[in-house]
Amino acid sequence: MLEVLRIGHRPDRDKRMTTHVCLTARALGADRVLVDTADRELEKRMAKVSESFGGAFEVQTGVRWRPLLKGTDATVVHLTMYGENIATWEGPRWETLRTAPHVIVVVGSTKVPGELYELADVNAAVGNQPHSEVAALAIFLYLLQGGEALRREMAGGRLQIVPQERGKRVLDMGGLGEETADGLGLEL
Amino acid sequence: MLEVLRIGHRPDRDKRMTTHVCLTARALGADRVLVDTADRELEKRMAKVSESFGGAFEVQTGVRWRPLLKGTDATVVHLTMYGENIATWEGPRWETLRTAPHVIVVVGSTKVPGELYELADVNAAVGNQPHSEVAALAIFLYLLQGGEALRREMAGGRLQIVPQERGKRVLDMGGLGEETADGLGLEL
Repeated sequence: MLEVLRIGHRPDRDKRMTTHVCLTARALGADRVLVDTADRELEKRMAKVSESFGGAFEVQTGVRWRPLLKGTDATVVHLTMYGENIATWEGPRWETLRTAPHVIVVVGSTKVPGELYELADVNAAVGNQPHSEVAALAIFLYLLQGGEALRREMAGGRLQIVPQERGKRVLDMGGLGEETADGLGLEL
Repeated sequence: MLEVLRIGHRPDRDKRMTTHVCLTARALGADRVLVDTADRELEKRMAKVSESFGGAFEVQTGVRWRPLLKGTDATVVHLTMYGENIATWEGPRWETLRTAPHVIVVVGSTKVPGELYELADVNAAVGNQPHSEVAALAIFLYLLQGGEALRREMAGGRLQIVPQERGKRVLDMGGLGEETADGLGLEL
């Protein structure tokens, strides 16, 4: 089980950033994103993406993260530019994470409470420079799983993108044939 | 020379997303981000990051991208979920890009003009699922350069993060000694 926990979410201000956190988690094969602040719109927005493009990914908001992290058996990895640079990790370090039955990757918004550094098993930096949490999450999930993460089929969706050298090709499995992506009305 | 071109930037609506594109480009070792729409605030915001944390990275806005792409000798890689999945690329494909003297990686905002697919040398998908352009850029730049991208020292900054297992440690090279990151006033 691979989960992402997003804390410090402010529905109005962080709408797009948290949506991008969720899109990234989904595209890189996470099972679920947990968000601290309740946000039904975000849940619905992401449910729509999975409805269109498949997969069992889900978003749960309004999650009380302190009791969650205190009570979990999962390996908790907090991504922060202040942590240990993952570019210096040797293979065994990654192997431990790869074989863990349950990993929760935590990403904050602007600033996170100090106790998170204590609650996490690992404070990991995707480079020690000011960063985007979306970028850090993307690279971390990629390195955790390898290229496989980007090749996974997501079943049950109505639409399927067919890779092209030029232009766009989307198959509509819902019986409407092929449509251009421009018609999808995606505003991500 | 490694550049990122951001098109479709709307200064009010995309403020944070484009800032995250720039932070990602900088943290992953790009030399420069070019942005189509003029946005002095964005230039200043990112100049401040480099002033604090070092490096020669810069942001130039108000760039006319069509003449730029038409006239350039650079290899132009457009990141789009409709393109060829980079997870299927073999080594030689990457090698060609790694040895190219000048690469421009293009990321759009919501929707990009169709002609971009023609102007690009490569339309590359970081997975064929709806994605975040920040995440796609991060993984692409990482794979292009390898872990080295995250270990690069950025010279000349006032502040330097010292990787920690727990908590935050920032050295202030400007003579003020050590300060906690909370005092940095970073709102990214």
